Order: sequence, then C-alpha cells, then structure tokens
Amino acid sequence: MSEPLYDMVAIGNALVDVLAHATEEFVAEQDRQYNMKKGTMSLIDEVRAVALYAQMGTGIESSGGSAGNTMAGFASFGGKGAYIGKVASDQLGDVFRHDMKAQGVTHETAPLAVGAPTGRCLILVTPDGQRTMNTFLGASVEMGVDDIDSDLIASARITYLEGYLYDREQAKRAFQKAGEIAHDAGHRVALTLSDPFCVDRHRADFQYLVENHVDILFANEDEIKSLYEVENFEQAAKIVSGKCEISALTRSEKGSVVISGDQIIEIPPQKAKVVDTTGAGDQYAAGFLYGFTQGMDMKTCGLLGTLAATEVISHMGPRPEIKYADLVAQAKAA
Amino acid sequence: MSEPLYDMVAIGNALVDVLAHATEEFVAEQDRQYNMKKGTMSLIDEVRAVALYAQMGTGIESSGGSAGNTMAGFASFGGKGAYIGKVASDQLGDVFRHDMKAQGVTHETAPLAVGAPTGRCLILVTPDGQRTMNTFLGASVEMGVDDIDSDLIASARITYLEGYLYDREQAKRAFQKAGEIAHDAGHRVALTLSDPFCVDRHRADFQYLVENHVDILFANEDEIKSLYEVENFEQAAKIVSGKCEISALTRSEKGSVVISGDQIIEIPPQKAKVVDTTGAGDQYAAGFLYGFTQGMDMKTCGLLGTLAATEVISHMGPRPEIKYADLVAQAKAA
Repeated sequence: MSEPLYDMVAIGNALVDVLAHATEEFVAEQDRQYNMKKGTMSLIDEVRAVALYAQMGTGIESSGGSAGNTMAGFASFGGKGAYIGKVASDQLGDVFRHDMKAQGVTHETAPLAVGAPTGRCLILVTPDGQRTMNTFLGASVEMGVDDIDSDLIASARITYLEGYLYDREQAKRAFQKAGEIAHDAGHRVALTLSDPFCVDRHRADFQYLVENHVDILFANEDEIKSLYEVENFEQAAKIVSGKCEISALTRSEKGSVVISGDQIIEIPPQKAKVVDTTGAGDQYAAGFLYGFTQGMDMKTCGLLGTLAATEVISHMGPRPEIKYADLVAQAKAA
Repeated sequence: MSEPLYDMVAIGNALVDVLAHATEEFVAEQDRQYNMKKGTMSLIDEVRAVALYAQMGTGIESSGGSAGNTMAGFASFGGKGAYIGKVASDQLGDVFRHDMKAQGVTHETAPLAVGAPTGRCLILVTPDGQRTMNTFLGASVEMGVDDIDSDLIASARITYLEGYLYDREQAKRAFQKAGEIAHDAGHRVALTLSDPFCVDRHRADFQYLVENHVDILFANEDEIKSLYEVENFEQAAKIVSGKCEISALTRSEKGSVVISGDQIIEIPPQKAKVVDTTGAGDQYAAGFLYGFTQGMDMKTCGLLGTLAATEVISHMGPRPEIKYADLVAQAKAA
C-alpha cells in the first residue's frame, strides 16, 4: 500500500448558510406553526424556504454544510483534504466552490447544470447563541454513486461521512459505496451522527453502521442518547464503547469524552464567548481528526477539537476565522 | 407642505460585499501589481473581479453598498427609510433585496432583467481591521434618471447620496435630479464624500456641490483634506464651515467633529474592539441622521453616529448585528 495522497476526504450535503439573528418568540412561533425544533435541523422544501427567508432578518451568507465545515477546519489546521458534495451552477454554488478552493481543499464534484439551485441552510441564531437550522437541500440531493470518486476515496487515510446523507436514498448509497472503498483500501471510516432527529429517522441503520462499518464516531450527548435510546450519557457511553474503535462524544459546556478501547479520556471545556454555535460539532471533528491523522494521542486530539469548536462559536458563521494551525502548539503545551 | 412620509431616502450603488481576511503582504503585492490602495476603494471590471476573487480566502457574503449600509443602520435605529439602487435578477440581487426588506426599508427599484450580474465589493480585511475594497459595479451602474422616483424623494425629510455615484455619468445625473427634487420639496440633501480617491476623481464637482446643493456633509479626515487640498484637518474644517450648513467629520480613533453654523462640537471616541472597519463611516452617518430627523441636538446626533460605528467595527460585515434603537437611551444619558 502506497502512502495516502490525502489525509481525509469528506462527503456531505454542499450547502450555503444564511445566518440571521432571531428572537426566541420567532422560533417558538415557527415551532408552533411548522414544527421547527430549536437547536436542531429540519428539512424544508423550496416553497417553505422562500417563505421562511422572507420572514427572516438581515442575513450573512457563508459556505456551510456539516462535512464541508469540517473539511474547511481540517485544512485550516494544515491537513490535506478533499470534499465530495454537489452544488448547482449558480452564484451560491460559485461561492461554495470558491471557499473550498480558497481553503486548499480539493473539490471536483461536477456542479449540477440544470435543475435545483444550490442548497441552503436558513439558520436562526437566538440571543443565547443557539442555532436552529432549516435546510433546503436543493442540488445537494443530486449527489449520487457516480459522484463518488473511487480513486480519491482509496487515496485518503480517513473517509468522513455526515449522517445527514442518510436523509436521501441516493446519497445513502453514495455513502455506503464510499465506506466500502475506504475499508477495501485499508483506510478508516469516520461518521458524525449530525443531529438527534437525524438519529431518530435512521436509528437502526446507524446502530448497524456504528457496530460494523465505522471506526471513528462523533456524536453529541443528545445524539448518542438517542442512538441507544437511553436516558443518561454514561449509559450511552458505555454501550458505544463496545461497538466502535474510537468515539468522541461532545457535551457542550461540559467538554467532551473520548473513548478508545478501554481508555476513557475526559477533555475539559475551554472558556468561551458564545455568539453563534453553528459549526461547533463540525470543527470539533476537524480538530480531532487532524490530530488523529498526525498520530497525536487521544487527549491532544480531543483538545484540538475543543479549541477549534471554541473559536467557531465566538463569531457568526460555521468556518474558521483564524488559522487553526496556530492552535496546535497550544494543544501540545496543555 | 404635508408631513413627510419617510424620514430619509438614500441613493447608492447596490452591492453585495464579499469579505475575506488577508495578510498585509497580499494587499501590498496587489498594490504593486494592480495599484490596490490599502484602506480605500478601487473600481475593477468583471475580469479582474473574477481573478481577484480566485485569489481571495474564504469569504462571508452580506449586503453592502455605502448608502445601503447607512439605510440599514438608519432603519435599525427606528427611522422610516427608503432606498434606491439597482441589483440584477440573480441570487445575490435576491439577497440584497431581502436584506433591505428585512430591515424594514422600502426598496422598489426594478432589478436589471438582462445584462450584468449584481455588483459586488471584494473586501480584504487585514489583521489591523482595515478594509481594502475592490468594487465591480455590475448592475448597479445601470441605475439612471428613470429609477429616481420623484414622489418618493419629495416625500422624505432627507435625501442621502453617496459620492461613489459620481463615478458613472448616468448615476451622476440621477444624483443631481434627486437633489433638485428634494430641495424643490423643501427638504434637505445629505452627501457622503465616500473615499479620498473618489474626491480626487471629482474634486471640482464636489466642491461646487458642497457649497451650493448639500445641507449636511459627511467626510472623514482624509476626504475633507483632499476636498480642499490642505495638509491639516483644522484648515479643512475651517474652510468647510463656511460652505455647508452642517458638516460631520469623522477622525477614526480621534472621534469626530460636528460643525453647525458657528458651533463646533467635538465628539469623543468610544472604546472599540476593531475586527473589521467596513461600514464605520456608513453607520456613523446612519446614527447622526437618525438623531437629526428626530430633532436631537448636534452632540447627541454625533454620539449616536459614534455608537453605531463602534458597533459595526466590532464584527465582520458592514451592517448592524444589534438593534441600534437600543443605543438611543445610551446616547441621551451621556
């Protein structure tokens, strides 16, 4: 086996985020009318996207998508990465592709020439910094098995997948194909569970995947509890420890826990000024996986994740505003 | 004369901003190759816009345009406003129009159906927080005399114009028409000089305008010195005091000076964390003019401008991230 060309390739729904501040009352009213659950992601269609956008405040647009954010953070640490995800041939698609390239991430998925516009995620940021996401998938759902570049996947140490892909049959097949190629090439597969409601929708699939096909799992407290339908975090952590090589479980202001074999490593939280939590989990995964691909110990990996997540929640938007490579010395010194 | 329907109508180049962090070296190299002057605005064509964008880092997109920013801030204070400026019928145009409407600003200028895309301003933010702007005007230059809604202008207490309009003959005529309508209706005309290089390009025109057609002038230190080709601020302030009813002159970290008849009021700066200076002058004008339309004294007007400018430089992007109406009590208590 030759030396991998890429440290990591990520596959996800390519989305442009539209972030706007919103009041608690606005989100509560949207919940009553449209079942919008604060702090989670809902899938919406184009008609609803247009209607919701019309009600939202002044926005800031930036490239997003969970795995896309992770890849941008991973590259900001200095990792060599690629991304597979589909945008349309339109202005927002150009923005997404520009930002990947600007971050040094290879992104060669052919844009959709005709049909749906680039997908977008309408994000309401409440005064507590929590984000509530409403995703119109647009062109991103057109990603399919044909978009999975086998040589690319086989050439990466880690193939990183977002759980959100399971929301569409075509993307799910692409996801499965990518996982098989990675393992056939002797490389690792990482998965993020994405969202507790996403876990609800695909619980049996995800349980099977975690036990049989995933080497490194990312989940937050709500997601891992939902996966095993248990009431408390410790129970969930105990169950997952027997199923997956490495699990990195994030707990917001309580820090995170990394479980690797019989090792359980608690990573303390960092002091944070919370402006917008969008991208926190994505950047935790970026930091952790960068450390992992560089052969760092689990504690340092977890600390890198924490430092990146702490940076991204200090400003509006889901991607780094500083060079994450500068965090490495800080993590090593800790 | 009936009570005006609007507190203010602003006319400007409708642009979407693309903000990216950049190093001092990058800007210096662009200056060597393309005469990009740090801290100022350069006009660029579409080919250069594409080439520069390709070299820029990950961006954040938001609605911009100097007068558009001012109008957004003015509405955030609670002022009733309208905006005239031209975008294209494309995704970035939709973003611009959405953001105006979301801020409660009337914006009924017909978008350009065919031709240039929505104009954009590529902004490089250096580590010192300074912004260097590169504007591809796109559809915004297609605004002409026909887009000036006479009834709208006549119904506003203040018509606010940006100096940048003088860069194109068609927009300049629209500018002149608007000024005439406002004065014929017995209302006031405000102007911002926009940029020292913009003043260089149109010095004689601006001198004539300020003396004969402008009631309230906004300029920063470099712009007012450039207007009268003098070496120091005090000389420039003395000259302008004889020419214009009210001048509000901003001096960055030295605060601002408001000259009204024989009154000279010094407004101290506020403590600021500088992240990105984009929109500082625009929001100063927003605060000042909001106070003015509400009949506040000159000192309070200047303080409102200062508070708004201080907010906008504390984050990436040229428009409010808080409700500026909340600043009014603070200014009145000072």
